Amino acid sequence: MNEYMKAAYDEAMKNITGSEGGPFGAVIVKDGEIVASAHNQVLATNDPTMHAEIAAIRMATRRLGRFHLEDCEIYATCEPCPMCMAAIIWAKIPKVYFGANRKDAEDIGFDDNYIYEFIAGSAREIKTYCYILEHDSCVKLFDQWIKKENKEMY
Amino acid sequence: MNEYMKAAYDEAMKNITGSEGGPFGAVIVKDGEIVASAHNQVLATNDPTMHAEIAAIRMATRRLGRFHLEDCEIYATCEPCPMCMAAIIWAKIPKVYFGANRKDAEDIGFDDNYIYEFIAGSAREIKTYCYILEHDSCVKLFDQWIKKENKEMY
Repeated sequence: MNEYMKAAYDEAMKNITGSEGGPFGAVIVKDGEIVASAHNQVLATNDPTMHAEIAAIRMATRRLGRFHLEDCEIYATCEPCPMCMAAIIWAKIPKVYFGANRKDAEDIGFDDNYIYEFIAGSAREIKTYCYILEHDSCVKLFDQWIKKENKEMY
Repeated sequence: MNEYMKAAYDEAMKNITGSEGGPFGAVIVKDGEIVASAHNQVLATNDPTMHAEIAAIRMATRRLGRFHLEDCEIYATCEPCPMCMAAIIWAKIPKVYFGANRKDAEDIGFDDNYIYEFIAGSAREIKTYCYILEHDSCVKLFDQWIKKENKEMY
């Protein structure tokens, strides 16, 4: 097995033998070295955002002291859900290697595929409803942001 | 202004006067009470996942001691990006109120709209490449997960 995917697999296995979250692992690699290694910790932390990839991104950015990881790759045992994929894009990670996919995850009861459909606007059943409120006032925040000096983008 | 959106607006304003991240705020409301209130903290924490909505979800789940927020609503000054929208769905929050939208965010230089297109498979430019690796081995993890007893779903 690919050594980095094996490391991600070993992380995922911790939730087969233990019970901190779902059977998902991820590692982040920079210059051939693993700089972060994590498994899903939703149950252990009560934090629904603590997927393996998010935990690994937090670990890597903390370790490297920066919010962009454009020189890193991520290996995940399952296709990142939209939350994790978007986090990977925000972190500017250019390459993602994954094993199982969103349909495999659906087969064992996880909503990854549903959430992909929701984000794409093609979900048949809607469980989360969005309403627009105070659009004009909120856009004024952006007008002020544009005028702000010395701002850093991310 | 709606009182909850005003609270989210005041959070966002902290990044106009200060510099912890982008001009985005969010609050989570349960039974008419604000149980979490946060602004974007990507720059302050070096964590690219620290959007206002994610920070608020983490705060609310920590405060309530559970990973589902099906009895809560979220108010955000801007349409949640796919990372935050997926986190909201994982947290089972049924109602989202937002002000500015993904196109307004794009107008001030943020990638929300691009990431929506990427997730939907319609982005014209791809900056993050995905590769399948060790599919069969990783699906075996799921076979073991299915057989695991007393597992909790989330």
